[in-house]
Amino acid sequence: MAHRAAGPVRGMEQVTQALGGRIAYGADYNPEQWPEEVWDEDVRLMREAGVNLVSVGIFSWALLEPEPGTYDFGWLDRVLDKLHAGGIAVDLATATASPPPWFLERHPEATLVDPIGNPRAFGARQAYCPSSVAYRDAATTLIAELVKRYDDHPAVVMWHVNNEYGCHNDHCFCDASAVAFRRWLQERYGAVERLNEAWATAFWSQRYTRWDQIGPPRQVSYGNFANPGQQLDWWRFCSDEIRNLYRVEAAAVRSHSAKPLTTNFMGFRKSLDYRSWTDVGDLVSNDHYLIAADEDRTPQLAMTADLTRSWAHGEPWLLMEHSTSAVNWQPRNIAKTTGEMRRNSFQHVARGADGALFFQWRASRGGAEKFHSAMVPHAGTESRLWRDVVRLGADLSAIAEVAGTRVEQASVAIVFDWESWWAATFDSHPSVDVDPMATARAWHKACWARNLGVDIVGVTDPLDGYDVVVLPAQYLLSDETVDRLTAFVEAGGTLVATYFTGIVDEHDHIRLGGYPGALSDLLGVRIEEFCPLPEGDEIPLTAYGSGAIWSERGRAVGADVVAAYATGDCAGDPAVTRRRVGKGTAWYVGTELAPDALDTLATQIFTTTKPVVGGLPEGVEAIRRVGEQGTYVFVINHTHEAVIVPVRGTDLLSGNEGGPHLVRAGQVAVIREDR
Amino acid sequence: MAHRAAGPVRGMEQVTQALGGRIAYGADYNPEQWPEEVWDEDVRLMREAGVNLVSVGIFSWALLEPEPGTYDFGWLDRVLDKLHAGGIAVDLATATASPPPWFLERHPEATLVDPIGNPRAFGARQAYCPSSVAYRDAATTLIAELVKRYDDHPAVVMWHVNNEYGCHNDHCFCDASAVAFRRWLQERYGAVERLNEAWATAFWSQRYTRWDQIGPPRQVSYGNFANPGQQLDWWRFCSDEIRNLYRVEAAAVRSHSAKPLTTNFMGFRKSLDYRSWTDVGDLVSNDHYLIAADEDRTPQLAMTADLTRSWAHGEPWLLMEHSTSAVNWQPRNIAKTTGEMRRNSFQHVARGADGALFFQWRASRGGAEKFHSAMVPHAGTESRLWRDVVRLGADLSAIAEVAGTRVEQASVAIVFDWESWWAATFDSHPSVDVDPMATARAWHKACWARNLGVDIVGVTDPLDGYDVVVLPAQYLLSDETVDRLTAFVEAGGTLVATYFTGIVDEHDHIRLGGYPGALSDLLGVRIEEFCPLPEGDEIPLTAYGSGAIWSERGRAVGADVVAAYATGDCAGDPAVTRRRVGKGTAWYVGTELAPDALDTLATQIFTTTKPVVGGLPEGVEAIRRVGEQGTYVFVINHTHEAVIVPVRGTDLLSGNEGGPHLVRAGQVAVIREDR
Amino acid sequence: MAHRAAGPVRGMEQVTQALGGRIAYGADYNPEQWPEEVWDEDVRLMREAGVNLVSVGIFSWALLEPEPGTYDFGWLDRVLDKLHAGGIAVDLATATASPPPWFLERHPEATLVDPIGNPRAFGARQAYCPSSVAYRDAATTLIAELVKRYDDHPAVVMWHVNNEYGCHNDHCFCDASAVAFRRWLQERYGAVERLNEAWATAFWSQRYTRWDQIGPPRQVSYGNFANPGQQLDWWRFCSDEIRNLYRVEAAAVRSHSAKPLTTNFMGFRKSLDYRSWTDVGDLVSNDHYLIAADEDRTPQLAMTADLTRSWAHGEPWLLMEHSTSAVNWQPRNIAKTTGEMRRNSFQHVARGADGALFFQWRASRGGAEKFHSAMVPHAGTESRLWRDVVRLGADLSAIAEVAGTRVEQASVAIVFDWESWWAATFDSHPSVDVDPMATARAWHKACWARNLGVDIVGVTDPLDGYDVVVLPAQYLLSDETVDRLTAFVEAGGTLVATYFTGIVDEHDHIRLGGYPGALSDLLGVRIEEFCPLPEGDEIPLTAYGSGAIWSERGRAVGADVVAAYATGDCAGDPAVTRRRVGKGTAWYVGTELAPDALDTLATQIFTTTKPVVGGLPEGVEAIRRVGEQGTYVFVINHTHEAVIVPVRGTDLLSGNEGGPHLVRAGQVAVIREDR
Repeated sequence: MAHRAAGPVRGMEQVTQALGGRIAYGADYNPEQWPEEVWDEDVRLMREAGVNLVSVGIFSWALLEPEPGTYDFGWLDRVLDKLHAGGIAVDLATATASPPPWFLERHPEATLVDPIGNPRAFGARQAYCPSSVAYRDAATTLIAELVKRYDDHPAVVMWHVNNEYGCHNDHCFCDASAVAFRRWLQERYGAVERLNEAWATAFWSQRYTRWDQIGPPRQVSYGNFANPGQQLDWWRFCSDEIRNLYRVEAAAVRSHSAKPLTTNFMGFRKSLDYRSWTDVGDLVSNDHYLIAADEDRTPQLAMTADLTRSWAHGEPWLLMEHSTSAVNWQPRNIAKTTGEMRRNSFQHVARGADGALFFQWRASRGGAEKFHSAMVPHAGTESRLWRDVVRLGADLSAIAEVAGTRVEQASVAIVFDWESWWAATFDSHPSVDVDPMATARAWHKACWARNLGVDIVGVTDPLDGYDVVVLPAQYLLSDETVDRLTAFVEAGGTLVATYFTGIVDEHDHIRLGGYPGALSDLLGVRIEEFCPLPEGDEIPLTAYGSGAIWSERGRAVGADVVAAYATGDCAGDPAVTRRRVGKGTAWYVGTELAPDALDTLATQIFTTTKPVVGGLPEGVEAIRRVGEQGTYVFVINHTHEAVIVPVRGTDLLSGNEGGPHLVRAGQVAVIREDR
Repeated sequence: MAHRAAGPVRGMEQVTQALGGRIAYGADYNPEQWPEEVWDEDVRLMREAGVNLVSVGIFSWALLEPEPGTYDFGWLDRVLDKLHAGGIAVDLATATASPPPWFLERHPEATLVDPIGNPRAFGARQAYCPSSVAYRDAATTLIAELVKRYDDHPAVVMWHVNNEYGCHNDHCFCDASAVAFRRWLQERYGAVERLNEAWATAFWSQRYTRWDQIGPPRQVSYGNFANPGQQLDWWRFCSDEIRNLYRVEAAAVRSHSAKPLTTNFMGFRKSLDYRSWTDVGDLVSNDHYLIAADEDRTPQLAMTADLTRSWAHGEPWLLMEHSTSAVNWQPRNIAKTTGEMRRNSFQHVARGADGALFFQWRASRGGAEKFHSAMVPHAGTESRLWRDVVRLGADLSAIAEVAGTRVEQASVAIVFDWESWWAATFDSHPSVDVDPMATARAWHKACWARNLGVDIVGVTDPLDGYDVVVLPAQYLLSDETVDRLTAFVEAGGTLVATYFTGIVDEHDHIRLGGYPGALSDLLGVRIEEFCPLPEGDEIPLTAYGSGAIWSERGRAVGADVVAAYATGDCAGDPAVTRRRVGKGTAWYVGTELAPDALDTLATQIFTTTKPVVGGLPEGVEAIRRVGEQGTYVFVINHTHEAVIVPVRGTDLLSGNEGGPHLVRAGQVAVIREDR
Repeated sequence: MAHRAAGPVRGMEQVTQALGGRIAYGADYNPEQWPEEVWDEDVRLMREAGVNLVSVGIFSWALLEPEPGTYDFGWLDRVLDKLHAGGIAVDLATATASPPPWFLERHPEATLVDPIGNPRAFGARQAYCPSSVAYRDAATTLIAELVKRYDDHPAVVMWHVNNEYGCHNDHCFCDASAVAFRRWLQERYGAVERLNEAWATAFWSQRYTRWDQIGPPRQVSYGNFANPGQQLDWWRFCSDEIRNLYRVEAAAVRSHSAKPLTTNFMGFRKSLDYRSWTDVGDLVSNDHYLIAADEDRTPQLAMTADLTRSWAHGEPWLLMEHSTSAVNWQPRNIAKTTGEMRRNSFQHVARGADGALFFQWRASRGGAEKFHSAMVPHAGTESRLWRDVVRLGADLSAIAEVAGTRVEQASVAIVFDWESWWAATFDSHPSVDVDPMATARAWHKACWARNLGVDIVGVTDPLDGYDVVVLPAQYLLSDETVDRLTAFVEAGGTLVATYFTGIVDEHDHIRLGGYPGALSDLLGVRIEEFCPLPEGDEIPLTAYGSGAIWSERGRAVGADVVAAYATGDCAGDPAVTRRRVGKGTAWYVGTELAPDALDTLATQIFTTTKPVVGGLPEGVEAIRRVGEQGTYVFVINHTHEAVIVPVRGTDLLSGNEGGPHLVRAGQVAVIREDR
């Protein structure tokens, strides 16, 4: 086995080096969908567009191994040779993302089964159970062949393991999955009695006496609620199980390769706790798509990039997929507006990506994704889209020196924990309107609008270096986290915790004695009872404005009541409190503040927090990347007005020097700051 | 076998005697969810709250019988001893509500199966087919052990058989259920040909020639409608089958006990026709929960209590479960407002309950119901909720003399028949908006707002003693019922029948010759054609106001047209009619009157009907209970204004004498009337 | 085998002759649901109503063959004899629409299976898999018995094969269906590799190497999209497979009969491509029901009749079922208003029907359709509905001379292709709001409102004779169709193509190089990118008004831009274009025009298109039928105002001569034009 670079740090650096120090630019490339005569044009157009890296072979299993153990590598040889001849580097896929038709034909026991017990058929992609031994065997066999054949190919600079793991098969309820789940539970609990404790099986006569009585949380009877402990461990297991599959495939690659490898994550994918996956690969790569109907899709992109960077421990990462324009899987697949693709790309790079790749190079003629946009549209190169693609290639080339720099230390950390997210959103809770993601997004947007640096961190990540830490509806908190949060505040930090934070421990057991049990002392509040609001209702506060979704009956025990509920049964009870603790401050926000109210409160809380660039209107995004050679301020003007940016230096895109810089509506600047 | 008290009458009286003549107060008590050190505190706090009765062991099967035939009673011995030492009586459960994990492991054939054929997994509660022989065997075996062991325990005053039968497993479509269904059909029809007649199988080529061709109404093909006769008999069978299970378990208790037994009903539970169950137990007990999003939840509670009392033939009954505040199973579980728990409790007692128990004593730390409110909240006793619980205990103690009295004879009966409800709401009907429950609620609320006594009666209950009988969309009427209604009117009663009443016979066969076939003669109307209204439409009438959902083409044949449709294709046809018959009056209401219109009509119809207490504004509820020692007027002020109640006597809660009495906003009075 | 009349032309003529030259009038007649004593009254009332044709035995299988191979024809003998004695002709059913209970009992493998793999139970109708060999055997065995027995019965004038094929079992996913699907694919493609090409299986690793790897598009995993090629061929197969069943049953009839046969179609039934079925039967018959909630149900009826006539190649056809008033299967089954049944009937006859039959003769007492209206309502003959039925019989008798005439040549053809409809509405498309049916209806309504003759034609139908051809979102177009459309325009025709037309070829592969690939040259537009609009949004145009659902980025290449997008990212790009080509004109409409905008554009496009009768307000329908003996203008006044119709001749209904004719609100005239 070859020597390996450690952790997610070095891998992107290696890739950048292989690309000659450039920002990676390219796409998924699926030549097998086209006749060979198109391939030469592909390479020519890639060069025209400045493409330097393409992912090849992601869905090629059926072509590479048309029958079990029979391989056809000829076409791939030719593709890689052509690419290499054209100076295009390759992120070569393990080709294991979707097993061919023969796989389920031979291994029907590997069929994915849904919660109600129905098998799910072949006919789309990812048709397999993640716990299937047959799948792992078939995949690693293919990987060994591929890596042995191509690891030395000069075009290949990295390995792309599988693809969007778990996108359609994250939860399988088959018997093999049940066996794997039990094994996972045994490892976690050791003794059944400890599981009984954790799952609170004294409730509803569920006490287990043997492991083999336990199964996945399959669909229970009408109007019934499955055990929440079982549900929580199931979500943990499913994420871990797919991570294990990633480990198995990564090990198969590494048996024959020393090149960096990655798998492409899917951002805020609820079922997959990627933070625990990042030690598997050599670099973090992520796919990101806008939800067209989301009015806040622009800050949402920024938030996802802030999350991805946190997974990469602040090191550069790779945007493996985004789209040039519309996708094909939303109800209404809205095209990107003029300049939106460019702004999106720069958002990612500004926030730490050292590459911007698309799905996909050439829009398909057939298949389920034929209406997904691509770098080469159906209309061909006589199109605005192609011209934008070429321009973006030139832009990224112009800022090549940014590659390898790190985003400046953020001043705000938003804690967003996957286990807590799962547990907070199970059934039979106080209100279906509680949505930790929505609350987190509201706080992130408040930072984004102020150009405050933000990291989306995990619950065990270090908190030093941040001015403010936000806990948006972080329902499940361990004792250890509480201790670290307390230390953070006492040392001078500002903590903001919202309602439904710190309610349960890691077993989803209530912390008794008044909510929020984990933080009651630190925050100086004691809540007696939750008072969720009716659908759509607003509740006026004595300050800031109004809240929604939630109110509470309780009182301050040490905190200042900054805002109370103004009407209703909780009138006079605390809605927003602040407590001075040690050198720091702990805020509590007991309701979902209306946007205006949150804005007012955020202005108060962030009054001393320094923005990346001050004085910019909302919608003009500014981020700084810092390298040994210099510092770079990315300015992305999402507004319809030109803006003057008070930064001095050279705009690498326009070549303009001096400053302040005028950035026109919809435009971008990357300013290398004068020293 | 021991001697038994007869019927549902004596049982509650026995319980009250065992409680020393007090109103029962307490909760489900689940000590197995807590370490033993909590149990002593539990008993101490129960005493502080005035608790005198708790239900124990409902979900304890897995602990009591951890392996088949292996019992662990030690912990229950200790719990009962502690309770007894503290003076707390026990309603001891048969513990059969939820079989342990080993049950389905051993008896997979007892798995519940849904209409599409999917088994429903273990992991919540009630995971069994109600027709399962294995379940009956296992349950009765446990019952025999329990009753033999505990029937003589001095704490035990009654038996709690199973729990909320059929809450999640009311309809099972497995093969064993099919066998039971066929057996039930054979008993009902004797010959297949009679079933063919009843089910109208000449339609759609469904004629059966052998019993074993017949199955449950499993999911048919796309856009298809299952035979309505089959559906109706299926609903009948499912209710009967669970009643039979209750009978089996009750018999097992009675083999070793002479103490009163009950099972807790769930009010207007559509799938269970409890009226036919009431001869099984010794007292009627009911669970009631408010639907937070229901604006009329307060009169809905009253209506449910009026129903429960009718099941108990007017004798005192037991409120087995309600909630101190929010529940956990609605989309938004709204907390009760100040005083609401107290008003709710008094509503039940006023309408005949001799006890008010909660689910549950102590809010759970874990499990699917941990966010359900309880008597001891997560926040502990330093809470408004606990103080309210203590106060309510004192209140109920103060009115102990009410126990054993009966609610005064009602002046209005609303007929609400389960078979008719089922049949009226099957598919392929004139309009999905027809909702007998909604119509019944509208009429009940009109009575409630006027403080008219109301019983919710069955179709075979005696009608003498009532001034007015209301038939809200009672679609299915037998000939015998028609005769009784006719006699009622001729003898001087007032009948009010709404649209979609009397349309079919007990086989769901149309009564031909003009609608409503069963009542056309009595009402003096002949409807030719139903004219349901488009969704949301209103139709103006020539009097009262407007209607919705329904209109009709027809004419009066003997009745006076009091209101006609004012516009549209039915303009001029009768909407509200009145016919003098013998000494009485028969009204027909051919549309769903808008609230204002119904109010106007109700004022006209009830003009001579005497309220319990006159002159009170809507929302001030007054009910009278009558005993040998005196009469008691309960006044519950649901409004935000104080009210003066023109009743003379002593308020048992405040001690105030004389009268009239001032009852403040949100407050309650129980006035023992001066003789 | 007996001599056969050719094609769908002669069959209706034969029926009309058998009825003595009269328009067919009658219903489904289900005497088996009633005691025999009712049958005599039935015949008497049929005579009173002018009924001359009834369909008998459609759901009688279980009675005719109560056990396999055991027949009971006695009751049917008596029914037919009574009908014949009464002068009522019979459309005798094969009785195969619904197999009896014994069928699935004996052949469980014939059970219908849904996409998720669940069998669908007996209990409604049509409980069988269309690919079942057992079903075909059982059905043809019965048919042989029936036809041999009754073909010579003097009452029987035609055969009614099965009934509404595929109404509830159009797509079966069982293993037998899979086998049949593979066989169909083998016939279509010959080699697997050709299927791989067509299905674009290079995408997502789906390449098949053997036929037996291929199955129906069963439910794939979460959020996944099944191969669109597989979906398209599945829809093709399912329609073909049921057509084959029709062929098998028709052949069984013809083995012993020379009488005309038909099966009743269901109009715009998406899953069944009837146009390819019309060579099976001897006449086209259709069932039509209004959707009560559809505001445009009146033009929708006209459109369906225009479609049916096109299937019949312009020859007279038979309205096999419609309703006298409400149906039973919609959420709210609204009764027909005064005169609506009569107007509906005349709409059908005006547009080519030589008969108007109802479902059903006598409203059922029991069963799933008991609330479906009928000729004899539950209320009996003392009813407005019965009087209307009798009047309609007299009306149809009065216009008997119309029978056999043809509707005048239409000036407009709307192309509506089933394969294109399927393909256009699969998943993963640009917008879920694209609805070819809605667009087609909007254009048909524009013609209907102007009294322009319209045919709804198939993609291979001849286009000569039309002034205007409309392609409403005809997504899939073959090269051959493009050639024919081009020739049509060059010869002087006017073509109107809307957005999402001509996007793919017959394999659902994109036509590259700019949309709409198939028509870009002809229309003179080149679209680069689709820009679907957010839900509910409107986009203003520079002319006509506004559009919805869709906009596009592109440019005119030869066409005149008649309207451009006025705002947004596509501002200035063409929305409506017109190109002169040869002697004709090709219009392109790139958005879904708002009704007002479409109206304005239609006025422009149809300016030289001649209406049947000019100058009538919208809602007064005028159609001309042309025969050797004369021409007949049907005028149906759907409005609430009387109208003067500038046609001279004799109204066959009123006897009024001369003209112009006054047609009162809601009334009908059939004017034999003066020569």
